[in-house]
Amino acid sequence: MSAPLRYEEGALLVLDQRLLPASEEWIRCTSAAEVADAIASMAVRGAPAIGLAAAYGLALASEEAARCAEERSIHLDEAIRVLGAARPTASNLEWALKRGRAASDPLEFARALEREQLETDRALSKLGAARFEAGDRALTHCNTGPLATGGYGTALGVLRAAEVGHVWVNETRPLLQGARLTAWELEQFGIPYSVIADSAAGSLMAAGEVDRVVVGADRIAANGDVANKIGTYPLAVLAARHEIPFYVAAPLSTIDPSTPDGASIPIEQRDPAEVAFAAGQPAANPAFDVTPAELVSAVFTEAGVLEPPYPEAIARVTR
Amino acid sequence: MSAPLRYEEGALLVLDQRLLPASEEWIRCTSAAEVADAIASMAVRGAPAIGLAAAYGLALASEEAARCAEERSIHLDEAIRVLGAARPTASNLEWALKRGRAASDPLEFARALEREQLETDRALSKLGAARFEAGDRALTHCNTGPLATGGYGTALGVLRAAEVGHVWVNETRPLLQGARLTAWELEQFGIPYSVIADSAAGSLMAAGEVDRVVVGADRIAANGDVANKIGTYPLAVLAARHEIPFYVAAPLSTIDPSTPDGASIPIEQRDPAEVAFAAGQPAANPAFDVTPAELVSAVFTEAGVLEPPYPEAIARVTR
Repeated sequence: MSAPLRYEEGALLVLDQRLLPASEEWIRCTSAAEVADAIASMAVRGAPAIGLAAAYGLALASEEAARCAEERSIHLDEAIRVLGAARPTASNLEWALKRGRAASDPLEFARALEREQLETDRALSKLGAARFEAGDRALTHCNTGPLATGGYGTALGVLRAAEVGHVWVNETRPLLQGARLTAWELEQFGIPYSVIADSAAGSLMAAGEVDRVVVGADRIAANGDVANKIGTYPLAVLAARHEIPFYVAAPLSTIDPSTPDGASIPIEQRDPAEVAFAAGQPAANPAFDVTPAELVSAVFTEAGVLEPPYPEAIARVTR
Repeated sequence: MSAPLRYEEGALLVLDQRLLPASEEWIRCTSAAEVADAIASMAVRGAPAIGLAAAYGLALASEEAARCAEERSIHLDEAIRVLGAARPTASNLEWALKRGRAASDPLEFARALEREQLETDRALSKLGAARFEAGDRALTHCNTGPLATGGYGTALGVLRAAEVGHVWVNETRPLLQGARLTAWELEQFGIPYSVIADSAAGSLMAAGEVDRVVVGADRIAANGDVANKIGTYPLAVLAARHEIPFYVAAPLSTIDPSTPDGASIPIEQRDPAEVAFAAGQPAANPAFDVTPAELVSAVFTEAGVLEPPYPEAIARVTR
């Protein structure tokens, strides 16, 4: 199992996930700006892994600033600005930067965060798995395994911890994180799976082939609305129609109590070229959508399983 | 505008739509078996164009049989078997073969069918367009233009006839008929469009960016259930949630009164390799799904606009 990040003296090595599973190449980042580039280009992706990468990016800036103490604060603020602007939707990014800035040693903070992530993932995965029955056929979207978190995985962690019988893997256009990354991880876990076109999920549900849906999240608002990879919202609508439980698995760092609702979550519009079939073809490429809280059966966090009414449940675990 | 088929003395030339828009190559078919291959491989696709190709395939078999009169009937029956088995879902295939077999001159029948298709498409497109308002932002799936019918188009014909302001084009995984074919045709028609990942339709609807959805059909059952390209059903469910009209545009030849409902429509399972990211990756590839009649706002046919209750409306136009 590949971890998405590796810290070596003075450098963050980022596994370039855009090339997986065909080839395993590492990008060497020696500055916050280089880490920001790796995040923006999606060489590293997945909300928790983005947060972790940003924490290491801040650590790199801190090391550099240490050579010039009087400018340290300005240098760190600039690093936070650059890293924070790399991608807008995942709340883990801002969360990690805020905590990293407050830490006396940003590198020690990043390392602690990495250790924490594994425990967090395991805890929420165990809680989520308890909602599954052995042999369940589960459907998931995008990638939420170790590559996405640096730990055990969120939604995919739940599927690892539960003894599911089969996983339907949405290929997850346009960047195919499902077909490339989730399939690759499931193969290593030895969990049976089938990749499907994203648009096939509806007919599988109609045919009674899906027992549960579980996805990750990039940001969860105070009212329980969930921003996640484009295509999550249609799954939630279809699951509701077919009375299939729709679960979200995410660490507390993904919950942003300062964002009141889904309408307040900034949705990244990525390069149309990621969708276009030919150069210059007009295309629209929203990278995320918002699933209203009413469609979410439960949210698995390391602090417990949150259930409606979400505003109260979220307030309890984030205060 | 390219027509999908061209008949020359003793041969049916089939435009290989799998290569569009990158290159325009024609496959020369001189037997029913070769036409069946072109249909099965999706070199020619779209329910009406499949029916038309089959009619020409039968004409080729008829010409060949003419050289050996006593075996004519056996030869034609064999051609019908091979052509009819090429793809299971589109009812136009069986419909065209049945009528072609009954015709005294199968070639004349095929030529008449081709002329008819243009009139049929124009008639249903005009009726459908009357349900649109100028400037509407419409969403469509797969390809339903001249390439799919050999005429003016069905759902895309409606969008040509209506003065729509913008078309959201689902790319239509796995074979990208939207991004490759519909975008190419809309470009030629001068209609503004954007290609989107299929899974982005939900968030566009939620954002109020879609006024109407219109799709084609491969088979419409007696009760109004609609089999169409995989991904149609999720669109209908999302449209219903957002109170957006969901229209189906199809010639009467697509309606099969002998199929009672959607559950009776055979759904083609295509090669997993069309979906799989890498060779041998486990994948499932249902090519069609079924949209229950309750989610269909209206069906545009050349004989009028059908509205609920569909069993009665369909019985009226197909008896």
